Amino acid sequence: MLRQLVLTALPGMPLVEPGDDLPRLILEGLRRAGLSLQDGDVIVVTQKVVSKSEGRLVNLGDIQPGAEAVRLAGETEKDARLVEVILRESREILHTRPGLIVVRHRLGFVCANAGVDHSNVRGPAGAADDWVLLLPEEPDRSAAGIRRRLEAESGAALAVLIIDSHGRTWRMGTVGVAIGVSGFPALVDLRGKPDLFGYRLRVTQVGLADEVAAAASILTGQADEGAPVVHVRGLPYPLREGTLQDLLRPPDQDLFH
Amino acid sequence: MLRQLVLTALPGMPLVEPGDDLPRLILEGLRRAGLSLQDGDVIVVTQKVVSKSEGRLVNLGDIQPGAEAVRLAGETEKDARLVEVILRESREILHTRPGLIVVRHRLGFVCANAGVDHSNVRGPAGAADDWVLLLPEEPDRSAAGIRRRLEAESGAALAVLIIDSHGRTWRMGTVGVAIGVSGFPALVDLRGKPDLFGYRLRVTQVGLADEVAAAASILTGQADEGAPVVHVRGLPYPLREGTLQDLLRPPDQDLFH
Repeated sequence: MLRQLVLTALPGMPLVEPGDDLPRLILEGLRRAGLSLQDGDVIVVTQKVVSKSEGRLVNLGDIQPGAEAVRLAGETEKDARLVEVILRESREILHTRPGLIVVRHRLGFVCANAGVDHSNVRGPAGAADDWVLLLPEEPDRSAAGIRRRLEAESGAALAVLIIDSHGRTWRMGTVGVAIGVSGFPALVDLRGKPDLFGYRLRVTQVGLADEVAAAASILTGQADEGAPVVHVRGLPYPLREGTLQDLLRPPDQDLFH
Repeated sequence: MLRQLVLTALPGMPLVEPGDDLPRLILEGLRRAGLSLQDGDVIVVTQKVVSKSEGRLVNLGDIQPGAEAVRLAGETEKDARLVEVILRESREILHTRPGLIVVRHRLGFVCANAGVDHSNVRGPAGAADDWVLLLPEEPDRSAAGIRRRLEAESGAALAVLIIDSHGRTWRMGTVGVAIGVSGFPALVDLRGKPDLFGYRLRVTQVGLADEVAAAASILTGQADEGAPVVHVRGLPYPLREGTLQDLLRPPDQDLFH
């Protein structure tokens, strides 16, 4: 039997607004695609629509930047109110340069500008420029909530990933990565599995959730908000519980500690 | 029309030996899969079978470690002959710890142990333990050579990626990345978004070749040489020329410079 992985961008997804029932929108998208959920299917959702459905919008007009934000804003040539929001979303600042603040996010991963998104965000009122979008409060929980609804409706055992695009230290271009995980083996540990000639592979852990995030990102990346959900079928690994935490290298093990 | 990306692991690929005609093996695998190449298709090949077909095997019994290799071998608890091979394949050493040498490879990317592989390697003679496999000498050229043959046989306009698995600075687990590119837009610009991880730009640059590498890597796995080639159909971007160089962040722009 052919080993195939099939990714389908759900067609006709509407712009998502705060309070929208995202699982229902996903179910409608699956119906439009002619897809019935099956055991082992993975649903990949971009963080932006999850954040929007959860109302994670902040009006910069409501933000009073503190002294640290004002200082960093000068250094990075950014809006001090935006920097204040970035600081509130961050555990520590790792690096800055004009236009860029690299942080360890309060969720534990390292990313640019704490994932605070200024593009194509429209608030309930006021100038569009004043609104920014935060990452979901707890993406694993968001993923679990979507999964629970989709499993209840379908009767299938599923996984849900919430993804964002992150830059890399030494390589150009962003790639999709998982920031929320439910029912998915985020990290596949092949340590000790013998290779073809019987040697032991001593350290082989695969960031499977990030590989699936990158794969789905090929389809979500092009239209800004047009294809925020991707259905994945054919994963050659059994589903099991997993979490974003599995993917985070402990700070004392990073390459620059 | 549904936007779908379909990845197929070519079935029944044999173990590749030095001198094997890899394009012919790929064409036979495509035939077994019932796939006819079409314009826009992408063929993804793991570095290991490319390196083997190119005879990039080194017998450690032939290696005389120099003083630097002996010193580093002590520091990292590795075989000094293996370290000597790693040094010869590297432009600079970035970081060491027991079991690990992070280098800027002579090809320009940063990776562990210069991509020198000790697993699944069987030399033409002598104890299997003595043989290691280097990365292809010039992976863009290897990719171009495979592409030329597949295009000549099929008449289709194709892309070829050669992939490996790399670790990440802050995240656990390896993911597939491209180390050789032919006919593929390695880096693509998305309009209308702020760049999140580099200098401030009007566009986001996506590491598309690395996203496709990660996607294919889901099927090629790690300890298994059974599926070293993946056929990809449905890429939502037009093919054009590209190179590994597109993916390499200039050292003076990396986050730790």
